[in-house]
Amino acid sequence: MSSIRSLYASDGGHLGGNMDVDYVVQYKVSSDRAEAAAGFTQLIEALTRVGLASEVRYGDGSSLLVFVKVASEKHLTNHIYRERVQDWLYGVRITTPNKDVAKEFADQPVTEAERLRTVYLLITKPKNQGGAGIAPKIGVWRNVESIFPLHNHAFNRRWIKQWSTKYFLDDRDLDQIRDKFGESVAFYFAFMQSYFAFLIFPAAFGFGAWLILGQYSWFYAIVSSLWSIIFFEWWKKKEVDLAVQWGVRGVSRIQRPRTQFKWEHEAIDPITGESVKVYPPMKRFQTQLLQIPFAFGCLAILGALYVFCFSIEIFLTEIYNGPFKSYLTFTPTIILTGLLPALSTILSSFAEKLTDMENYETIDNHHAALVRKLFIINFITSYTPLFLSAFVYMLFGNLLVPYLDIFKTTAEQFSSEESISTQGFQINPDRLKKQMIYFTVTAQIVNFALEAIVPYVKRKAFKEVERVQSKGKASASSDVLEEHEFLERVRDEAQLDVYDVTVDYREMVIQFGYLSLFSAIWPLTPLCFLINNWVELRSDAMKIAVSSKRPIPWRDDSIGPWLNALGFLSWFGSLVSSAIVYLFSGDSEGPGGDPSNIAVWGLLLSILLSEHVYLAAQFVVRYALKQMDSPGLQKERAERFAIRKQVLEESLGPEAIEKPLPPTPQVGEKITRESLEDKAREISAHGGGTPEQLFWLRQQGMDETIQIGRSLISQAKAAKN
Amino acid sequence: MSSIRSLYASDGGHLGGNMDVDYVVQYKVSSDRAEAAAGFTQLIEALTRVGLASEVRYGDGSSLLVFVKVASEKHLTNHIYRERVQDWLYGVRITTPNKDVAKEFADQPVTEAERLRTVYLLITKPKNQGGAGIAPKIGVWRNVESIFPLHNHAFNRRWIKQWSTKYFLDDRDLDQIRDKFGESVAFYFAFMQSYFAFLIFPAAFGFGAWLILGQYSWFYAIVSSLWSIIFFEWWKKKEVDLAVQWGVRGVSRIQRPRTQFKWEHEAIDPITGESVKVYPPMKRFQTQLLQIPFAFGCLAILGALYVFCFSIEIFLTEIYNGPFKSYLTFTPTIILTGLLPALSTILSSFAEKLTDMENYETIDNHHAALVRKLFIINFITSYTPLFLSAFVYMLFGNLLVPYLDIFKTTAEQFSSEESISTQGFQINPDRLKKQMIYFTVTAQIVNFALEAIVPYVKRKAFKEVERVQSKGKASASSDVLEEHEFLERVRDEAQLDVYDVTVDYREMVIQFGYLSLFSAIWPLTPLCFLINNWVELRSDAMKIAVSSKRPIPWRDDSIGPWLNALGFLSWFGSLVSSAIVYLFSGDSEGPGGDPSNIAVWGLLLSILLSEHVYLAAQFVVRYALKQMDSPGLQKERAERFAIRKQVLEESLGPEAIEKPLPPTPQVGEKITRESLEDKAREISAHGGGTPEQLFWLRQQGMDETIQIGRSLISQAKAAKN
Repeated sequence: MSSIRSLYASDGGHLGGNMDVDYVVQYKVSSDRAEAAAGFTQLIEALTRVGLASEVRYGDGSSLLVFVKVASEKHLTNHIYRERVQDWLYGVRITTPNKDVAKEFADQPVTEAERLRTVYLLITKPKNQGGAGIAPKIGVWRNVESIFPLHNHAFNRRWIKQWSTKYFLDDRDLDQIRDKFGESVAFYFAFMQSYFAFLIFPAAFGFGAWLILGQYSWFYAIVSSLWSIIFFEWWKKKEVDLAVQWGVRGVSRIQRPRTQFKWEHEAIDPITGESVKVYPPMKRFQTQLLQIPFAFGCLAILGALYVFCFSIEIFLTEIYNGPFKSYLTFTPTIILTGLLPALSTILSSFAEKLTDMENYETIDNHHAALVRKLFIINFITSYTPLFLSAFVYMLFGNLLVPYLDIFKTTAEQFSSEESISTQGFQINPDRLKKQMIYFTVTAQIVNFALEAIVPYVKRKAFKEVERVQSKGKASASSDVLEEHEFLERVRDEAQLDVYDVTVDYREMVIQFGYLSLFSAIWPLTPLCFLINNWVELRSDAMKIAVSSKRPIPWRDDSIGPWLNALGFLSWFGSLVSSAIVYLFSGDSEGPGGDPSNIAVWGLLLSILLSEHVYLAAQFVVRYALKQMDSPGLQKERAERFAIRKQVLEESLGPEAIEKPLPPTPQVGEKITRESLEDKAREISAHGGGTPEQLFWLRQQGMDETIQIGRSLISQAKAAKN
Repeated sequence: MSSIRSLYASDGGHLGGNMDVDYVVQYKVSSDRAEAAAGFTQLIEALTRVGLASEVRYGDGSSLLVFVKVASEKHLTNHIYRERVQDWLYGVRITTPNKDVAKEFADQPVTEAERLRTVYLLITKPKNQGGAGIAPKIGVWRNVESIFPLHNHAFNRRWIKQWSTKYFLDDRDLDQIRDKFGESVAFYFAFMQSYFAFLIFPAAFGFGAWLILGQYSWFYAIVSSLWSIIFFEWWKKKEVDLAVQWGVRGVSRIQRPRTQFKWEHEAIDPITGESVKVYPPMKRFQTQLLQIPFAFGCLAILGALYVFCFSIEIFLTEIYNGPFKSYLTFTPTIILTGLLPALSTILSSFAEKLTDMENYETIDNHHAALVRKLFIINFITSYTPLFLSAFVYMLFGNLLVPYLDIFKTTAEQFSSEESISTQGFQINPDRLKKQMIYFTVTAQIVNFALEAIVPYVKRKAFKEVERVQSKGKASASSDVLEEHEFLERVRDEAQLDVYDVTVDYREMVIQFGYLSLFSAIWPLTPLCFLINNWVELRSDAMKIAVSSKRPIPWRDDSIGPWLNALGFLSWFGSLVSSAIVYLFSGDSEGPGGDPSNIAVWGLLLSILLSEHVYLAAQFVVRYALKQMDSPGLQKERAERFAIRKQVLEESLGPEAIEKPLPPTPQVGEKITRESLEDKAREISAHGGGTPEQLFWLRQQGMDETIQIGRSLISQAKAAKN
């Protein structure tokens, strides 16, 4: 693509160099200059206070770029050491950090991701936790536009080049992403790669089913559902495995505090003696209950829009036969395209407000709660059209269509003609399939364009405008010559969007939903997704490398809240696809629009059966997968073993490892006898002894016990069996 | 009870004393004396080899008692230390064991349970793991009847006395059990106590429902189902909490190897270098699939028996009207009482065989697999009669009863009379309720008798026979006078059964099932169970103290496989009780034996709805409970905090704790400026510098950055918003 070529055209030596900059803070110059100057002073002071050095340069016309790097490496390592101790306490790492700090870092040097993460925390953590407390765009920091690390262009270039020439990604590719962009991004690519590889089977099988079985096949639905169980359970295992291999297992238990958290009162933790900020969980729970009306509200609003467009569409395409038909059929599409994104945005921002009100203490909890709500919105926007077609149009079409005459009457009032000409209504059995093809092919292509091409064009245009506007302005012309190229690059990066992995996850999860819920309608679905995802994987890489700021390398031990969404869709698929197959298999026209043709009990029974077969299969698959070993578990075992050996050696001496109990029979016997004889002597010296001492003195040593035992045996009565 | 009085009548000083004995090995004298003598020698040698001292005495007529105690306390502490290191590695304990072994044990002395557990492991662990490898009743050890610790009678006496005089158990009571009998038994009592406390609500509510709502009430069923969700989810949380408080959280990850495990080949673990015994998991999985035919087999066999008895019963009680009716009605009960226990025993031993074939590596896995199968058997034996009554008799009675004429015909062939007189059949609407009362009242009383009274009588009688038989025999008369009373006590204990907590769990889980599945039939069910469990809790304590050998104090971090069984019953209850309520509510006669009166779709819909409401409620309850703090979690936090403080103090110095980052603004600024100026001097000494060095030298120190930034701000164009 041309954008890469332009970014990497000049292969100068400076390309890899980022002037040792750790972070760039983009500072907006507000119209109140004095306030801007005061805020700027505060910023630099706050940065300096936590041991960061800073340099300031012009940004674009109306902003400054503050370059930040760690002034004292010792402060940084102290912070990282602290984090490593925390990791160890939470069981994220198994080996204890070496008590000699210097040795610890000699053994395990600081990685690029670790450094960037720590510096970011240093800048953004609250003051009482040792950070500078800078929160972009909030409160006193409202002029701080963004805080971002700089891309490693040499790496990005190699990365994109590599990926565009290979079919499969391997573990090394993922490790690379992890080292540069953190585990959070690496988990997305790992998930994508696994999903892509898993899709090969249903793609092939679906192609076969399409050739042989046709649509609405029981067999295809069962295999597909089983596949989704296996994929989901396998991924849950893989996820843990990756987390262990990347040394981040359990990292989600260490939670970052949220700056915006509002506490009701402070209390002293009885245990740690620290003051804790408290917000009553029951109060939060009450707010959380608002999610229920929220979900119904979303359903009502979006549902109403869909039903409205759906009705017009059916009226226009299948009943109306008057003038301008070919133009009018686009009306619903136009309405949807206009209103849906707007409504989605409004509802999403409402979801954000609701999540803010829920007032979570940690970033992770906040994010999970937000994702839950976004998933509801996306679920409704994505699947409602298909639900309407399958369970309303196809079933009740003939009953409901007469009510569509309202459009005719309405139109007639506005029309000059006396009567709008209509045609007889007949349910279009291909409607479902056509819609499905739209969602799996057309929508994915449109999506790709929106995601990859539009931002590029937008950026190009924007840059051009900027260039024209800032002509003759101070910014670029005041650069020192040898810095100019570097600063221009940073200014470009400052314009880029922040990469949000949530958006990419959402896309994939919704795609998985189409597969799990509706692919029985058109068995070529998985094949289309397979092709789409090959491109998607690479365009996402490109998005990070070219059209986004470099992401902060957060750690993560899972794909987080999306895992639940996947599990939900997989389970819900068992209900929906069994219903679809039951209703429409056999003759492809289904019950032909007359609901009295359907045996409701048969439908309910097949849903009930399908769900429970699903749950049973899940149980079996989960159990079977649990039996298997994996590289991550092996690694964990090895680490445990090494430490155990070390601790035992240090405490019990090196021989403790090889043979857990040294004494050979003879030695053991000697010990026993000697210790007993010592005791005997001691007791006799004092004259007599306790009943216990006397009891244990009757048979001194092994030989006597054996001898007496043998004589007892010869006298005893034999047991009956 | 008289049994306690007799056991504790003499309150001599010797009562508490167990002669320092750790374990008693009961050794059977087989008819082949030479073999018995050789085996005995082997036994004493094996014990001595692992550092255990032994004394031998007569047992009953045909067995010897080998008393075992640890010869060298150092060996024992080495073993315990090893175990503590392992605990720490698996995250069971958070604090590292002190590397100075003596100090470790001074800080945390060995508890009674820890000592007994370690000695038992020393006796039974395989040789290659440092134990004596003695496996009772297996292979060369077939003459070893049992290995058991001795009761602490003084404690038992206090314990039973305390419990019989208080209504509620508190944490201290549970801690006591834990210290003496280990966490495994303590978890059972903790579960019982929680279950008992939770039952108070449905008991009161059920009583109210019985007065006001009557049977088959929707409202009662919903409340009851909600209660079971809350109880189950609460217990899952409580369980974790208890495990943390008892210091055993995660202990189930440390698994004891099973002696009977047969491996296919040995392999060298690439990581640890140890040889590992391998049995292919896929082969095991194939064997595990046999559980499916096993479950169906159980259902077929037990089901056939029930259907047979059920048919006869209905024929005799509700159709037959001939001679001897009052005697003949007992026929099905007699058949069931005779055949059911026999069949159960056969199926249980078959389940054991199947589990043996599955060849698990660890005791926990083996046990969980066995419990799964036993649960299937118990599920079928316990609930089939009610299922038959509710879903066959009440629904299809009128249709099926004519087929019962086969009994009439059969009877007529054997009878002298020409025709057996019969009466017209009518469905008995009270049948379900009567059955339910039988299971909640009569069966529980019978069970109590079987569990508490029969063993006592049996033991008494057995002892009398023993006494008569062994009159004039060597055993008792050869005792040294001062040991006689102690030895008699040990001989008594050797006769007692082994306490198996599984049996007690099974009883409670099955009881929970009646509550969850069928209590809508008779809302007084929870009240009866509440009363029963008050007695049960105390009789179980008595069972351990009086009529069982002292249990080996195993550790556990959960009620184990029963948790799944509880969850299953709670969920299944939502299906069954909704079906029962749908069918029989309204008029208490339900569809009156005519299935055509039932709307199948209505039944299916109510099951489907009920199940999903159940799942949603579970999700909400689980989430709400997760928000709450608990003493266990607090304890864990406190420990983490203490260690973190300690490690950071040791590595970064004591001031590192109070203020994470020492430099004040001035100090920080000084550091920055100085370091930069040093750099500047260094660079100028070498003449020039890299672009990076130059970049960071332009603004030296905070003040210069601020100054330049302010001048840039005054020149810059303001941002538009």
